[in-house]
Amino acid sequence: MSSPLIVKFQAGSSGAWRIENIAPVVGESLPAAEYLNILEGAQDSSSVEMPKWTLRGFTSNSRYATREETALLATRQEGLGRPKAMCGALIPIRKNAAWWALAQDERRAILEEQSRHIQIGLDYLPAIARRLHHGRDLGEPFDFVTWFEFPVSDKAAFEELVCRLRETREWSYVDREVDIRVYRASY
Amino acid sequence: MSSPLIVKFQAGSSGAWRIENIAPVVGESLPAAEYLNILEGAQDSSSVEMPKWTLRGFTSNSRYATREETALLATRQEGLGRPKAMCGALIPIRKNAAWWALAQDERRAILEEQSRHIQIGLDYLPAIARRLHHGRDLGEPFDFVTWFEFPVSDKAAFEELVCRLRETREWSYVDREVDIRVYRASY
Repeated sequence: MSSPLIVKFQAGSSGAWRIENIAPVVGESLPAAEYLNILEGAQDSSSVEMPKWTLRGFTSNSRYATREETALLATRQEGLGRPKAMCGALIPIRKNAAWWALAQDERRAILEEQSRHIQIGLDYLPAIARRLHHGRDLGEPFDFVTWFEFPVSDKAAFEELVCRLRETREWSYVDREVDIRVYRASY
Repeated sequence: MSSPLIVKFQAGSSGAWRIENIAPVVGESLPAAEYLNILEGAQDSSSVEMPKWTLRGFTSNSRYATREETALLATRQEGLGRPKAMCGALIPIRKNAAWWALAQDERRAILEEQSRHIQIGLDYLPAIARRLHHGRDLGEPFDFVTWFEFPVSDKAAFEELVCRLRETREWSYVDREVDIRVYRASY
């Protein structure tokens, strides 16, 4: 488990990822933009002239996965930055007050025993790589920002993954979600 | 569960709490200082001239407590700011890499089933009020900063509480801890 990393997702008029579509799923959308940049840690963002919007979050220790699940994930998952992963998706979500009022055991039961969130993600490994960023504790508009990378040939699998998650009981607590699809601009 | 709140603990030459003692428990201590100020949220800190040191953290949702434990805590605990609570303690701790490499179920088992962290805290309610702040995800030198408030008559009880916690298996993962005792300067 590496140290927490602050990550900024900035939309603007140039960048490493071309934005294909920004779609509201629940609640308010985000302004249209052409490109997406991902800035990690102390990486300078002053070169990006006036971003249309910025979303921030930090990577952290996992909050729900058991040792067994963590071991399975570690065996199957691949990292970000695979050259074949030409497609990306950025999905910021916010959960409602009822979710945050739940205790740890209640959140775990809904997330995994009832909704199979971790298990569903495992079904799409190693094709779909992902990284979760926490925004709520920074006072950001979204509680979580998840970044996905996958090959063009796995676009249908990615659609299936997000559809399955959105049908779960866990997702009934989501009160804002935006679905941003991108592809590599610089390859 | 209210929204996360960013809190700054600043040591300097004036403030609401007089520092009585700064003692290293494990690892490096913090520089000596006379007063402690607690600044919440966007509260302006420019009035504090050149703090000797600043520790930051955010309040957040609980990470381990079950519904049953949360309900017990809610019944027994009192808030910060009670006029009779003339004594304060600020205890920043850092946990080692082995702790952060554990999965959620392993951390929970060590924290509560083996170390009784939540149960020990309950034994000293309502006398000793506390608030936990998370610093690790902000890149702070301490993972957690806990702030305690209690009446003079409960000083011995407070000593007992910290001694019991420091004897637990959970505490074997603590690789830096400083114990700062203060009392109200302005009453």
